[in-house]
Amino acid sequence: MNQPVVLISLESPHSFWRLSSRHERALSAAFPDIEFRKVAEEAVPHQLADARVYFGWRFAPSWLFEAPHLKWIASPAAGTDHLPVAEAHSAGVALTRSYGFHGRPMAEHAMGLILGFSRGLFVSQRVQRNRAWWKDDLAEEFFDLAGATMTIVGCGSIGRHLAQVARAFGMDVIGVRRTPPAAPEGGITWMHTTAVHKAVSVADVVVNLLPATPATDRFFGPDLFSACKPRSLFLSLGRAVTVDQSALLASLDSGHLRGAALDVFDPKPLPARHPLRLHPRVVLTPKSSVFCRTYMDEAVAFFADNLHRYLTGRPLNGLAEVPATRSPLIGG
Amino acid sequence: MNQPVVLISLESPHSFWRLSSRHERALSAAFPDIEFRKVAEEAVPHQLADARVYFGWRFAPSWLFEAPHLKWIASPAAGTDHLPVAEAHSAGVALTRSYGFHGRPMAEHAMGLILGFSRGLFVSQRVQRNRAWWKDDLAEEFFDLAGATMTIVGCGSIGRHLAQVARAFGMDVIGVRRTPPAAPEGGITWMHTTAVHKAVSVADVVVNLLPATPATDRFFGPDLFSACKPRSLFLSLGRAVTVDQSALLASLDSGHLRGAALDVFDPKPLPARHPLRLHPRVVLTPKSSVFCRTYMDEAVAFFADNLHRYLTGRPLNGLAEVPATRSPLIGG
Repeated sequence: MNQPVVLISLESPHSFWRLSSRHERALSAAFPDIEFRKVAEEAVPHQLADARVYFGWRFAPSWLFEAPHLKWIASPAAGTDHLPVAEAHSAGVALTRSYGFHGRPMAEHAMGLILGFSRGLFVSQRVQRNRAWWKDDLAEEFFDLAGATMTIVGCGSIGRHLAQVARAFGMDVIGVRRTPPAAPEGGITWMHTTAVHKAVSVADVVVNLLPATPATDRFFGPDLFSACKPRSLFLSLGRAVTVDQSALLASLDSGHLRGAALDVFDPKPLPARHPLRLHPRVVLTPKSSVFCRTYMDEAVAFFADNLHRYLTGRPLNGLAEVPATRSPLIGG
Repeated sequence: MNQPVVLISLESPHSFWRLSSRHERALSAAFPDIEFRKVAEEAVPHQLADARVYFGWRFAPSWLFEAPHLKWIASPAAGTDHLPVAEAHSAGVALTRSYGFHGRPMAEHAMGLILGFSRGLFVSQRVQRNRAWWKDDLAEEFFDLAGATMTIVGCGSIGRHLAQVARAFGMDVIGVRRTPPAAPEGGITWMHTTAVHKAVSVADVVVNLLPATPATDRFFGPDLFSACKPRSLFLSLGRAVTVDQSALLASLDSGHLRGAALDVFDPKPLPARHPLRLHPRVVLTPKSSVFCRTYMDEAVAFFADNLHRYLTGRPLNGLAEVPATRSPLIGG
């Protein structure tokens, strides 16, 4: 126990979400006095006895009882709703999320989904096998991104990245959050959450990036979908609980919404014959918007920076707000 | 015949490719001394007798015999391979194409097609109805645009616009043309057409924007496809004759190419059971990459600027090169 022990459990079926030996070597080289101990997830509770820091995807609430010396739980994920934030707080253990590197893949994903609709690419893929020529259909349906408006609801660091790419296509961007910046910033027109109905009423594309908090539960319900501009497109890439899926389906079926693309939905996966699976104007992706080949490189860099802070007594980045005391958090 | 007559025939099943009465009023207001005469395409040969200028989509070679006073044929299209360039030249009639406004919709189209592959969106759309969960498949297949390389073959004004958007995604862009700029420009690494094999060998995405000229006929053949980086993506948005479709299919079937997206192909439309229609890694769009709601606004503005030039004796923009004398034109 002379040197702090950092317990790491970063397993995944996908290489880009796993800690590689290259990452381990980089951490050891940067922190020669620290013992990094990489373990399988099932071994975590048995290895927590002397751990000061934990860096991993998952942390069960009961593991806190096995961790008398634990001071900090670091997650490589952007969200913390799957982690025992309140319990850790009560036990005096800091809990941090990661940020700053999810925006890039999510912006690629969002723009791909938007362009798939706006340029008629999803329609083309569906009919290219059985329709002689479908140019007239697309001519009716397509819309230009240049000059169109995107409203990002829950516009934090991920939204800012998306806004930057959308601006490169000549889109106007409205950012909605609980704490909008006082001054214009990032080429975004900022609006307060209280004005969200107005913000979606002028948008050709609405992107939902809300985190899961008590205040965002089914935030997109019948009222807000009705407030959306007719023939607008809805994307949801944040948390499934922020969307009332029945209200979404009703808005699609009435023709009010042009289409929807969902990277998150409930339950996951959806039942085989769920109407969102079968809807001709819905595209589903399997929570793949955060897929990124350099994910773990960035997550390890974020953790290393925070570990420096921890060791020198500076405040940690990405501290999770405690649900019991926090007010509704819009955006990242 | 005291005032020049401008004959206009701009018909289309699609509103954005038609001259509207708003456009007519704008032209008349800008050129009060000119008689603009809008006619249906079948009436053109009967109305050419006193026309000095023609502005339209189509011009049959035989119409030149009906047009003793014609000085200039202006097309709102980007390409001239459907127009009688050599015949007009012989008759002493200028022929111009339009440029500067096709890049924006084509960049949207190209990025949508690329992201549809890179983010697994086309796969998702195909399997969302009948697969329980396909996250693992996408995790194998996706690639990041940030840090990837796009090579644009035939990198003229359209390619420059695409490059600008690709750069916003963090891509490196190589531009290939017959006359590359001497100095770096637009964040593009420029290469001469003679180095095209090298240029495609390092590209994750190859975009073919070659015009149809004698020198570009089946430019993308077995050799060039073999030179492409394994698992790269091929897009063709220029002219169908520049691609050897059998060689493309062979490259797809061998797994050398990851996929292909074609906005142009031959014949158009493809026969019902054509392998390009049925290929699981091919997405076809019906020459819709130039769809743009503001197309005619921009084409009329381009024509109006050229008409000012014509009336004041300045050189016209967009003069078509005469096939008989021109050398292979890459890009532009």
